[in-house]
Amino acid sequence: MQTKNVKAYGTEAAEAPLKSMNIQRRQPTPHDVEIEILYCGICHSDLHTARNEWGGTVYPVVPGHEIVGKVTRVGDHVSKFKVGDLAAVGCMVDSCGECEHCKEGLEQYCDVGLVGTYNSPDKHLGTPTYGGYSESIVVDEHFVLRVPENLDLAATAPLLCAGITTYSPLNHWKVGPGKKVGVIGVGGLGHVGIKIAKAMGAEVVVFTTSAGKAADAKRLGADEVVLSNDKEQMNKHVKTFHFILDAVSAVHDINAYLPLLKLDGTMVLVGLPEQPLPILPFNVVLHRRSLAGSLIGGIKETQEMLDFCSKHNITADIELINIQQLNEAYERLLKGDVRYRFVIDMASIKN
Amino acid sequence: MQTKNVKAYGTEAAEAPLKSMNIQRRQPTPHDVEIEILYCGICHSDLHTARNEWGGTVYPVVPGHEIVGKVTRVGDHVSKFKVGDLAAVGCMVDSCGECEHCKEGLEQYCDVGLVGTYNSPDKHLGTPTYGGYSESIVVDEHFVLRVPENLDLAATAPLLCAGITTYSPLNHWKVGPGKKVGVIGVGGLGHVGIKIAKAMGAEVVVFTTSAGKAADAKRLGADEVVLSNDKEQMNKHVKTFHFILDAVSAVHDINAYLPLLKLDGTMVLVGLPEQPLPILPFNVVLHRRSLAGSLIGGIKETQEMLDFCSKHNITADIELINIQQLNEAYERLLKGDVRYRFVIDMASIKN
Repeated sequence: MQTKNVKAYGTEAAEAPLKSMNIQRRQPTPHDVEIEILYCGICHSDLHTARNEWGGTVYPVVPGHEIVGKVTRVGDHVSKFKVGDLAAVGCMVDSCGECEHCKEGLEQYCDVGLVGTYNSPDKHLGTPTYGGYSESIVVDEHFVLRVPENLDLAATAPLLCAGITTYSPLNHWKVGPGKKVGVIGVGGLGHVGIKIAKAMGAEVVVFTTSAGKAADAKRLGADEVVLSNDKEQMNKHVKTFHFILDAVSAVHDINAYLPLLKLDGTMVLVGLPEQPLPILPFNVVLHRRSLAGSLIGGIKETQEMLDFCSKHNITADIELINIQQLNEAYERLLKGDVRYRFVIDMASIKN
Repeated sequence: MQTKNVKAYGTEAAEAPLKSMNIQRRQPTPHDVEIEILYCGICHSDLHTARNEWGGTVYPVVPGHEIVGKVTRVGDHVSKFKVGDLAAVGCMVDSCGECEHCKEGLEQYCDVGLVGTYNSPDKHLGTPTYGGYSESIVVDEHFVLRVPENLDLAATAPLLCAGITTYSPLNHWKVGPGKKVGVIGVGGLGHVGIKIAKAMGAEVVVFTTSAGKAADAKRLGADEVVLSNDKEQMNKHVKTFHFILDAVSAVHDINAYLPLLKLDGTMVLVGLPEQPLPILPFNVVLHRRSLAGSLIGGIKETQEMLDFCSKHNITADIELINIQQLNEAYERLLKGDVRYRFVIDMASIKN
């Protein structure tokens, strides 16, 4: 298969810093779209994978799955895009396309397994897939999203992961007017979740451990902010929530939040702490509560999310960096020192 | 308030054995039904409460909330029962009657708090409520159930707790034809759950750690039995279940079962281990699974369950004992040495 040499940033070992490297991209096949990457967001999953914290990382790895850019070439059978269009790629670049979930548009739950944008077996080249910390990417048009023209392009990038990860459960569990919704954690995921839940018409209560984030949470759309380490504040909300979105990636006490759910209420995990979280059976048995999880979203729903964000003028709050600042950004990410998402200006890769 | 002296069995301390004692029952008020108790099942909750394993036990305590008997007196305004009728009482004898859940017939989730059949504050006498290990009981007719005439009366008693506890989640999560349902544990709850799930038309797979229970599980209605400590057997069922009923009261590894759920599948806890159960976030995030809980059922649904059991000829498998064998039965219960529910023949209390 014909390939093209492309500049990227990746790492060759769990302990090694990210550095400049070259990777191969396939030449576009009939259904492929080639995208010049303009901006790529930095997700906590990038760091987990680069450092092999979930296991299974194949090196070298090139992270990045919050990709926006411009179409530079299209295959003969591509109908959704033409050269010059804005385009985006999220967490998946392929799936089996034939199982019941793929047919329903739920490619993220593909029975064979989704093909991640990085660190997954690439069906075309036999290498791992390489992500968005690179000059360009070639993706089957089914997995390429249209980008609304009215949004800031750099701030749109994080919607491809943080946006769909929070939109999908809020949408699936029918959050909207008349619903009281909690969002735990004001970070990369949470801050977008607050904006989306508010735009859906729900009453939004934000839980944070940092008093310093309260004003910010209100600016993002929170109707109320609760300091989750203040028992008295927490007790006032017992049995009042229809839905709670738990956007915390670190280990935390879910038993502090479950009692806040009403009868038949659901709390959904979207963060992925590596450690097990202890759950007290009483907390779900009483009031028939559910603890559920949700993984990104399908391609159809991701497009729906981008269109929803376009209509409600929602993007992420970002800090734009050059790719040479990547290792420093990872260290700051670990300390929670970013409001609220790093995005790489990919023009800097040419430096 | 006028009371009547009644023989009962209870205990005066967590470490003390159960013994004969006298308690006071109110004279029936206009909406009350007085029931001569003929049979009372022994539930693991009785033991938890007698030994204060959940905390909060007020002594002396008289357990028992799987009660069937005969109506001996009715208040002036009672319309559902007349003297001589069969009648039953389950886990609740009162609730606020005014909150949204009570009004929906979900008294078990009463906002003020349900009044348990034992060890709850009795609104009439100011004492704790006393349960079914006694000659008779007086209960508001709203909390008294009609008993089908076609079922064995002693084997019907456990339906009042074990029956409704398993029926309610199976019913709520719409188990029926075309659904693959797992039941974890062949014990007091599980063995009734198997019968009910099968009668609802589902494909029923039973999980047990005891190879010795496999034949019995099939007799109870299982289409297939899986030894849960055999990894190979478990792996064959990954991502195939719509619903799993977890009827285990002891601490156990829920992460062994969650991966068996299909997309959007739900596993429901009805047992109440005192210890927290660790849950791996990946197990719910992948395939958008839910871990939920369920507490007994409302009065309307309990009657519906009894009528369902009547139609499908379902009762519990029981071992009938005299009340003098109570302490021995508790010890055997702790060892899982009962197939599958002890029921007390209350005629023995007169000995």
